[in-house]
Amino acid sequence: MKVKFAKNYGFCFGVKRAIKIAEENQNSSTLGPLIHNPKEIERLNKNYNVLITNTLNDVNKDNSVIIRTHGIPKDDLKILKSKTTQIIDATCPFVKKLQQISEEMSKDGYDIVIFGDENHPEVKGVESYAENSIVILSVNELKTHKFRDKVAVVSQTTRKIEEFLKIVNYLIENYKEVRVFNTICNATLENQEAARVLSSEVDIMLVIGGKNSSNTKQLLDICKKNSESYLVEGSEDLNQEWFKSKEVCGVTAGASTPNWIIENIVEKIKQY
Amino acid sequence: MKVKFAKNYGFCFGVKRAIKIAEENQNSSTLGPLIHNPKEIERLNKNYNVLITNTLNDVNKDNSVIIRTHGIPKDDLKILKSKTTQIIDATCPFVKKLQQISEEMSKDGYDIVIFGDENHPEVKGVESYAENSIVILSVNELKTHKFRDKVAVVSQTTRKIEEFLKIVNYLIENYKEVRVFNTICNATLENQEAARVLSSEVDIMLVIGGKNSSNTKQLLDICKKNSESYLVEGSEDLNQEWFKSKEVCGVTAGASTPNWIIENIVEKIKQY
Repeated sequence: MKVKFAKNYGFCFGVKRAIKIAEENQNSSTLGPLIHNPKEIERLNKNYNVLITNTLNDVNKDNSVIIRTHGIPKDDLKILKSKTTQIIDATCPFVKKLQQISEEMSKDGYDIVIFGDENHPEVKGVESYAENSIVILSVNELKTHKFRDKVAVVSQTTRKIEEFLKIVNYLIENYKEVRVFNTICNATLENQEAARVLSSEVDIMLVIGGKNSSNTKQLLDICKKNSESYLVEGSEDLNQEWFKSKEVCGVTAGASTPNWIIENIVEKIKQY
Repeated sequence: MKVKFAKNYGFCFGVKRAIKIAEENQNSSTLGPLIHNPKEIERLNKNYNVLITNTLNDVNKDNSVIIRTHGIPKDDLKILKSKTTQIIDATCPFVKKLQQISEEMSKDGYDIVIFGDENHPEVKGVESYAENSIVILSVNELKTHKFRDKVAVVSQTTRKIEEFLKIVNYLIENYKEVRVFNTICNATLENQEAARVLSSEVDIMLVIGGKNSSNTKQLLDICKKNSESYLVEGSEDLNQEWFKSKEVCGVTAGASTPNWIIENIVEKIKQY
């Protein structure tokens, strides 16, 4: 099997930064998974004894706690601060910026539309900074909602720009002022664009990343439009059947997928 | 010939208001044409002795001057004030709002994109309030331009929303913050939507209005997509040939077209 890589794929700035922080803080724990990649989390645990604390109840003053790349809700941060002074913030700076924008827009009297998945930790964090906000994934959800005159719109950092624009266009057609913050991060945009191009040039696409990773799932959606595509977390997910009578396999990876996982998988498919 | 009217057409709030102002100020003069409808201007001149002053040079302290619906540039207003104290402002309140937004966004440090025709008096007025601004009619004109991080976008009140959204979408894809003011006026939007619907139901469309009227020309563009369409200023522009083997004629009119002109024309085509 011949393998072609996307022009841009894998680790983004925020994830690289968070992993470095975790590696530098052995024996600490993260509040929820640091990034959405179980295998990398396992590696940090094995090599650096970085644990996961699942709830705030489990935190005490002796704990050194790392805040995950996705950030945490405002109130959780308050509770965390009351429990321990050893807090290390690995929130992605782009997510932090998104939280700040939401807070500022609330202060300035805007109603806020957050384009994203309400169950995703990043979105829960952002929402906590946005008063008078609504979290939506489609235009239809806006139609039953009546905002005041001024609306601000932000996006979860890992969504698709086309979908974001649909939301924005509906708002512009219906409200006098729409203040649009394109908070989709550049790494996301670049990985998506590269996946779009590559998936139309190959026989099969592998999207490597965590099954709980938002940006990885978006990449899969994009690739599926152009070719047979599969999301794999590790080489154990591979199925040799997929590759029958195929010549070229395209490879991309989510922003939280480390190179060592990609290399393992590519090694294996090259042998097919 | 059977005649069908668009659900919304003709006089908008700003034009109605300006004509009332002119009628109440006999013997005054307007700086440039009050509205873009030569026949209505002629009526105001004949019945109320409202004249047109073409340049600021012609104004002196004895003149009572009406500012046209489209507004005038900031510097012209300053000169006008230095020449006469008798100034009556018939600027459409929606255009005034657009000037104010441009001024505020300049103060707040935004680069400003004005979607409109740079030669149109409304746009010239708005532009004078917008520092660091660019006037454009198409996305392509934006591509050679590099803005700072924060961009504000406004539209000439009489443009088409679809075109405005194209401009806005390009900006959102390329800049971090885009503050969008949908300054296309409701009358424009309603007249356009009604013209779109009616033109697809009839054999021929008449768009009645001034040949120098921006919103009238937009209506013509819309109708042409669905049926044979003509712009007529008065009944003398009609050509009986157009109506041969047609059954239903749709009628719409620009925001500066008075009813008496529409009635004259409709009277004539009913006889075909």
